[in-house]
Amino acid sequence: MFSFRVEALSGAARAGLLATPHGRVETPAFMPVGTAGAVKAMTRAQLEETGARILLANTYHLMLRPGDDVVAELGGLHGFTGWPGPFLTDSGGYQVFSLAALRRIDEDGVSFRSHLDGSSHRLTPERSMEVQSNLGADVVMAFDECPPAAASREEVAAAAERTSRWARRSRAAHRRDDQWLFGIVQGGIHLDLRERSALEVVALGFAGHAIGGLAVGEARDDTWRVVQHVAPLLPAEKPRYLMGVGTPEDILDGVARGVDLFDCVLPTRNARNGQLFTSAGRLSIRNARYRRDPRPPDPACACFTCRTASRAYLRHLHLAGEMTAATLMTLHNLAFYLDTLRAVRQNILLGRFEEFRRGLLRALAASEAEAEGGALAPRP
Amino acid sequence: MFSFRVEALSGAARAGLLATPHGRVETPAFMPVGTAGAVKAMTRAQLEETGARILLANTYHLMLRPGDDVVAELGGLHGFTGWPGPFLTDSGGYQVFSLAALRRIDEDGVSFRSHLDGSSHRLTPERSMEVQSNLGADVVMAFDECPPAAASREEVAAAAERTSRWARRSRAAHRRDDQWLFGIVQGGIHLDLRERSALEVVALGFAGHAIGGLAVGEARDDTWRVVQHVAPLLPAEKPRYLMGVGTPEDILDGVARGVDLFDCVLPTRNARNGQLFTSAGRLSIRNARYRRDPRPPDPACACFTCRTASRAYLRHLHLAGEMTAATLMTLHNLAFYLDTLRAVRQNILLGRFEEFRRGLLRALAASEAEAEGGALAPRP
Repeated sequence: MFSFRVEALSGAARAGLLATPHGRVETPAFMPVGTAGAVKAMTRAQLEETGARILLANTYHLMLRPGDDVVAELGGLHGFTGWPGPFLTDSGGYQVFSLAALRRIDEDGVSFRSHLDGSSHRLTPERSMEVQSNLGADVVMAFDECPPAAASREEVAAAAERTSRWARRSRAAHRRDDQWLFGIVQGGIHLDLRERSALEVVALGFAGHAIGGLAVGEARDDTWRVVQHVAPLLPAEKPRYLMGVGTPEDILDGVARGVDLFDCVLPTRNARNGQLFTSAGRLSIRNARYRRDPRPPDPACACFTCRTASRAYLRHLHLAGEMTAATLMTLHNLAFYLDTLRAVRQNILLGRFEEFRRGLLRALAASEAEAEGGALAPRP
Repeated sequence: MFSFRVEALSGAARAGLLATPHGRVETPAFMPVGTAGAVKAMTRAQLEETGARILLANTYHLMLRPGDDVVAELGGLHGFTGWPGPFLTDSGGYQVFSLAALRRIDEDGVSFRSHLDGSSHRLTPERSMEVQSNLGADVVMAFDECPPAAASREEVAAAAERTSRWARRSRAAHRRDDQWLFGIVQGGIHLDLRERSALEVVALGFAGHAIGGLAVGEARDDTWRVVQHVAPLLPAEKPRYLMGVGTPEDILDGVARGVDLFDCVLPTRNARNGQLFTSAGRLSIRNARYRRDPRPPDPACACFTCRTASRAYLRHLHLAGEMTAATLMTLHNLAFYLDTLRAVRQNILLGRFEEFRRGLLRALAASEAEAEGGALAPRP
């Protein structure tokens, strides 16, 4: 039912194939975030049009609303949302630590109040596994403790040790053989703590491994120092997932270090805020220079938005507060991410990922003035 | 380039064919409202999926933002929005009288401040024609004065007389032979004023005629008394348009009196508020009874939403504030309106509109409890 195979290497970058009960995913892959059971502003048909294959959904959000029992009764995430491809659910840990109110953490788990209505809830490794079993994703995550970037070394060490103990309990509570369970490595920016966490988590024999607790506010150099150190400690024959990362540039950096899976709200959230990712750099649609610009967001892109909408039209819809603006720009940003990942994979297969990465980084670094085509345009 | 032909009558109900430079429209037709150049929460592809043929866009909104000069430069409404089918623009009159601030009306026109930024603007018959020429819709409307339902008989009479004078000036200022110009009949709920307005407007030789100033708060009996009286005064060989109407029931009542064209924000606005129109009556998706309901909104509907989403999923997305809920429910409501209009037309062609109308009115009157299928379900 499940398998993962690395098909080619280019440097440390891997082209792989992940098979799940709901279809195959070519890796490296980007997972659009469908927090509450829908990728914001997208229908299932539009998501398919972006080329998305695997979606992430949030255990914390769905257990609170509509309730994992409701989702289970409607046929799990697949029946509930109608998405035919694979899903991955997170453990709920990250959101409990970033969104919930009045958290009290103990060795057994976390008590908290819902950010929606103040109601009391509790997550433990066992309960996280139960919720994720009800949600029915193809890939589920062990329950972890994700300390903030500002935490002391002692706090980070304690959280990583607890994450290891919770990983063991998650493993023991995992029941469904149609769900693959991944373990999560914590340890903040401390390489020795990361190394210890990786060894302990890997020893438990998970189907795949995630690097958690990054992109939470630490310096960018620290992020990549950690990924560089941890990725090689994770078994090469199993998928590696860098949680919550990132920009297109970040994803190239992750792939270069042997990561296979990524998720991030950036392409969807930035679209709603009017920021477009293009093959010539970023573009803020609010800019007055686009008022009469007849060109598509990205002339090199073939998505529905770039085939049918001008920058002038998108700018107008965005400023007028039309939901259609969010839809069209989300569609483009996801298509850009997913097209980029397909090109990444192709170049790994051809053994020239590093040249491709350097070329793309140069293009992405283009200023917005260049992206909009005018050396004469005033710099913002 | 333009033509209108009545193909069949069933009682006073007419099945017609309107040809425009951007394609043919079978009538009776419902025009979804694309206020600011997009039907809210819809992409062009989704609109096509609903079966929409002709869209309405608002002169007032577009002249203020992005400006009719910008729309003209981008190729008019067709080039700007990418919608390949026909457009109709209103005259701006209704919005000036309902939305704008600090209106001052004189014989020449109306001065007002934008509801967006307080900037000063002026609309006259000549300026309305110029704006609509820049917007480039297939059908444009003469500039009219639409008094509120609470206006006195004297105020209504003065507005109707001014509307006749403005109709003459609109006619004189109309330039583009690729735009059809319709005149508007005013006169409130007073049949003698309506009759006089109709005679004066019809005498100007417009390509089609609209009944304006209804559905603004008057009693429902008054609405239909006026339509019943006015429709036969409008030339049978030209299209008749009842502005701003209405519910599915209203549209059946209008068709029965010989109206060909309708527009209304109800299907789109109500969708965003969680109200669905179905073949078994209305359905409020917020209702707790739908929490675990696996059925589509309307089991008799074949739209994308009804093929792919359950009531439980739509309720969840709506309560979670997800834009996708607005998109999916707008798509269904429009598909329901447009499917209903197609069935109306078919039954006119078959000479049995009145039986069809009576049957559909019975079905639409079904209570929500019946719509959700349970005689056992508690009445709200």
